[in-house]
Amino acid sequence: MVKGKKTAPKKKPLILVSNDDGISFYGIRLLVDIMKELGEVVVVAPSGPQSGMGHAITIGNTLRLEETNIFKGVKAFECSGTPADCVKLAKDFVLKGRKPDLVVSGINHGSNSSISVLYSGTMSAAMEAAIEGMPSIGFSLCDYSPNAEMEHGRKFIKQIAKQVLEKGMPKGIALNVNIPAKSKGKIKGIKVCRQARARWQEKFEERRDPRGRRYFWMDGNFVSLDNGHDTDEWALDNNYISVVPCSFDMTAHETLAELNASFSKMKKA
Amino acid sequence: MVKGKKTAPKKKPLILVSNDDGISFYGIRLLVDIMKELGEVVVVAPSGPQSGMGHAITIGNTLRLEETNIFKGVKAFECSGTPADCVKLAKDFVLKGRKPDLVVSGINHGSNSSISVLYSGTMSAAMEAAIEGMPSIGFSLCDYSPNAEMEHGRKFIKQIAKQVLEKGMPKGIALNVNIPAKSKGKIKGIKVCRQARARWQEKFEERRDPRGRRYFWMDGNFVSLDNGHDTDEWALDNNYISVVPCSFDMTAHETLAELNASFSKMKKA
Repeated sequence: MVKGKKTAPKKKPLILVSNDDGISFYGIRLLVDIMKELGEVVVVAPSGPQSGMGHAITIGNTLRLEETNIFKGVKAFECSGTPADCVKLAKDFVLKGRKPDLVVSGINHGSNSSISVLYSGTMSAAMEAAIEGMPSIGFSLCDYSPNAEMEHGRKFIKQIAKQVLEKGMPKGIALNVNIPAKSKGKIKGIKVCRQARARWQEKFEERRDPRGRRYFWMDGNFVSLDNGHDTDEWALDNNYISVVPCSFDMTAHETLAELNASFSKMKKA
Repeated sequence: MVKGKKTAPKKKPLILVSNDDGISFYGIRLLVDIMKELGEVVVVAPSGPQSGMGHAITIGNTLRLEETNIFKGVKAFECSGTPADCVKLAKDFVLKGRKPDLVVSGINHGSNSSISVLYSGTMSAAMEAAIEGMPSIGFSLCDYSPNAEMEHGRKFIKQIAKQVLEKGMPKGIALNVNIPAKSKGKIKGIKVCRQARARWQEKFEERRDPRGRRYFWMDGNFVSLDNGHDTDEWALDNNYISVVPCSFDMTAHETLAELNASFSKMKKA
């Protein structure tokens, strides 16, 4: 927006919507509904479930992209690929050079807090947008029950998206927003947090197929390793919405000096 | 290792090997060959190509795991899933509680430097190990030509793996090691670096299938956005092996204060 030209008619912001549960999931329907109040919405989302896809992209195979009219009055495309593929196709093909003012992904069915951000397809769409310099937010609901209620998140999702549209964000950042389950009661507010240290303790369930051959289902429990009160896990446990700014710079900067020292010694050895 | 017990016989370190090009790829054969000189090797690797899979895991589908004798004298399993699945299955099923002293992944056919670390299946195996507290390294060769020569990396790979086995690593870190192509001439040494700022500029090639329906191939060019001399791209351009310590904490810590300030103002509005 041009500052000082307050009388000029405001151009509607362009908002790209994606997800990882697939284009027909009710979480993305609600997200589209909220975003329509804030701008012009274009949807590019996977045609089927892509949960747990992390930052996967489709390079060894072909991609399909088909227009669909499942969202009334909204330009929408379903893509055979991953959430990251969707954002790439949106940017380079669907939007033909128009740069979204905001990219949102979700609402995911299940938590993407803490370490789950790495495995999350929802967040990979947001991260892909951040890499491309677009402000982006992934929204997830911490409720795995079938048909989990999401409507209680509506006003917070709108508030956070509006804030980012109006105030912008630090460059190259995607917000990882997690919303407590409705069953936990009244949401107390929004907390900006760091990612809690945690991991998944997997359990592989061994089964036999009808031909007697072994296969596995991955299952697991979330194990918290962090007692901090400044983490997303703390916020969610205490019924706040957690907002973690995420970066695609994976460098562990704090270890560079130590590793430099030990690797230079190695070279002399 | 127990300090002060220098006369006790050293136990052979346990080394888990995976990759993303698939278990039959020649890059993993060379890596297994090198690791056999350093310890007891167990392989759990994808049965087929998993390039570009990022940190995907298989949660909406089943997994297969079959023992194979393709590596002489080495216990090896091929898995239908992603590189991250392989490490999870290795830890929880194949190794039955034995914790590897080192997890290595690769040698990848093609660069995983800079932003490519996010899309990399090779690095997701290493990151998964780091999450589990195991020292880990992903090795990639910056050469996309078919049957790219990898042997010139052998002594450096052994040196880096040995260093990590002997000196350990900061906790929760995976090393992203990229090796210049042989065609670039003599390797000058090893540099510990940060991840360069860069992105992929995609090009989607539109084609028609035999039934006239549209499909796409993703292609793209690497675009460097960084002039620093402390980056992996600089090191590789100058014929050094690049070593980037990678963390699974995605939090953009440097933005927490700024976002906290702007989000608290929002709440008052």
